[in-house]
Amino acid sequence: MSTPFRINCLVPDLPAPQEVLPFLQEMHENRWYSNFGPLVKRFEAELTAFLERENGAEGCHVATFSSATTALELALKAMNLPAGSNVLVPAITFPATALVVINAGLTPVLADVDRETWELSPAIANAALAQDDYAAVIPVAAFGRPVESVVWSAFQKETGVPVILDVAAALGQQDIHKDLTYCFSLHATKPFGVGEGGLLVSGDEALITLSRSLSNFGFQGSAGVVQQTGTNAKFAEYFAAVGLVQTARWKEVSGRRQAVLDQYLEGLKKVGNTVTLQQGTGDFIPAVFPVYVPGKAEALVARMNQASIQTRRWYLPPLYDHPALAHLPYADKETDTPFPASEELRNGLVGLPFHAFLSNEDIEEICDLVAEVAA
Amino acid sequence: MSTPFRINCLVPDLPAPQEVLPFLQEMHENRWYSNFGPLVKRFEAELTAFLERENGAEGCHVATFSSATTALELALKAMNLPAGSNVLVPAITFPATALVVINAGLTPVLADVDRETWELSPAIANAALAQDDYAAVIPVAAFGRPVESVVWSAFQKETGVPVILDVAAALGQQDIHKDLTYCFSLHATKPFGVGEGGLLVSGDEALITLSRSLSNFGFQGSAGVVQQTGTNAKFAEYFAAVGLVQTARWKEVSGRRQAVLDQYLEGLKKVGNTVTLQQGTGDFIPAVFPVYVPGKAEALVARMNQASIQTRRWYLPPLYDHPALAHLPYADKETDTPFPASEELRNGLVGLPFHAFLSNEDIEEICDLVAEVAA
Repeated sequence: MSTPFRINCLVPDLPAPQEVLPFLQEMHENRWYSNFGPLVKRFEAELTAFLERENGAEGCHVATFSSATTALELALKAMNLPAGSNVLVPAITFPATALVVINAGLTPVLADVDRETWELSPAIANAALAQDDYAAVIPVAAFGRPVESVVWSAFQKETGVPVILDVAAALGQQDIHKDLTYCFSLHATKPFGVGEGGLLVSGDEALITLSRSLSNFGFQGSAGVVQQTGTNAKFAEYFAAVGLVQTARWKEVSGRRQAVLDQYLEGLKKVGNTVTLQQGTGDFIPAVFPVYVPGKAEALVARMNQASIQTRRWYLPPLYDHPALAHLPYADKETDTPFPASEELRNGLVGLPFHAFLSNEDIEEICDLVAEVAA
Repeated sequence: MSTPFRINCLVPDLPAPQEVLPFLQEMHENRWYSNFGPLVKRFEAELTAFLERENGAEGCHVATFSSATTALELALKAMNLPAGSNVLVPAITFPATALVVINAGLTPVLADVDRETWELSPAIANAALAQDDYAAVIPVAAFGRPVESVVWSAFQKETGVPVILDVAAALGQQDIHKDLTYCFSLHATKPFGVGEGGLLVSGDEALITLSRSLSNFGFQGSAGVVQQTGTNAKFAEYFAAVGLVQTARWKEVSGRRQAVLDQYLEGLKKVGNTVTLQQGTGDFIPAVFPVYVPGKAEALVARMNQASIQTRRWYLPPLYDHPALAHLPYADKETDTPFPASEELRNGLVGLPFHAFLSNEDIEEICDLVAEVAA
């Protein structure tokens, strides 16, 4: 990806065309390029096995979509929640988390995030439920940090409110509990990237089947009629071809990401306590690499720019500062400052370069600059 | 495409992977696989030139999308019509024409089609406008038969009601008038297929720019904030790579389709007046090949099945018989039989095999069977 930077923030780790070619030849011989073809079916089967092997998914069903955004939107539509009802989402997330709620005819209600995990927590969700009714909650695996499935499963059981997890960036890291529904992204910039694509994983087979039907206009059964209003959000054969190669490359891809993470954790030892990482970093490999330098985000971005190193302010500004979302209601109605953690984080979070093509020298240089600004 | 039929109804004519490979290598070297990359930009530029050269498009802007369905939906959203307002659509069309209207928060109102063109006509639209208010009209290029741009442009000017054309199957055949907005499909099964994809073409640059922004979540400008609620409906680099090859293959692909059409027109001479083709067939190359055998559709399908020849009942049943659409209002409120032409056509329309891989013998056999049933 050609940018004016010497060190890019994010470089996809996708297979070379020659590796994909045998699958493309198969696709071409089948003359089947979309609409749930043989490669898509095989990729879904391989993903099911992958999630069982890597992430403890048992008794789960898997469906592919054109993107995580469309997958999450169609899952919400398939849940057939009352029109306009409240859905809890964190204020610090990629905007799509709230956009899909609006597109599904529901009302996103914005909640603060936890100061340590930078995610919507069950404690925050419980506080929201004490103030208002919710039809669903969408916790987010922020920056690829896996959410705690066991805790959210218990939350769903206790409250009776369906939990659907926007774990877009956490494929491979996220443990799976069959009581919950997960939405993953296969976008090129994600750790498990194919180009464009998304994934629903759930023990609820009816939900998966209906969501898939909605990705094909809402056609159901052999009669060729539309049973519920859908759209075109089908995952194409080409992306399944890339996905079949990515499944085989996963250990290699993860290994490269682990090495970059290890190098960062070593390099950041020198910066001291003024720089904070997302809670648990190291127990998981994140999708992107935000550091929290309280009040100094702009200074760090400026210093990196000066050195021709690209940074990204992932998930910022918070949702309530996007013109299209500024009208949305807040979960905490009993205070004038409903987003204390989000307000702090917005002034300190900076995404550092994090991809397989960084050299040890790159990472050392980046850590030195972080130390310089944080000092 | 593996089906139980000896002769398939529709076989995509897409390039072999080896032809696409140089573009895939370029994409991989760029490490840019989606999000308006260099190949997408180049393909959009080539399409603009193609439409100028082939279809008289002057002063038009072109944007690519994940599908024609998402393109049409986002164009409707970009028009910012009053919520719930009426949009006129024909009852004989692919269901997506109505689904996108619902998804855009508007009300599809179903109209009958013309007995000869099998399309929504300006006369039918004028009759609808005499009975009710409409925020937009969506004429459809049924089965790939191009709509009359000059006539619809005049209709739009006279009535002040915006016309947005669902010409999904008519790329290459459809003449372009810059006062109107056109939506084309690039789905694998279309004459100009790439796999999955759609296209908006319009002289209205602001509409194209906003629609494109809505395909990227609604992000606008460099501030990285969402200005209007969008989704992910981006066209991927891979499909642009295929598209760049298809643009170069167009004369060859069209030539094969013309030869099949010519052979059909010759073969069908023997069936006499009991079989009707869509008005003007021969002046254009259709996308699929429906014949009208009054009252004998089921008999023809059965006879073809018996001979292991696949047929398709494209666009049937009419929209008002789909469970998800049965509640929609009708345009003609002054009669108990609002769809006389649609009701006749539904019992006679059968899509015959129509693709580049049919032999002269295949077509002769098909025409003989049509003659047998129609006699």
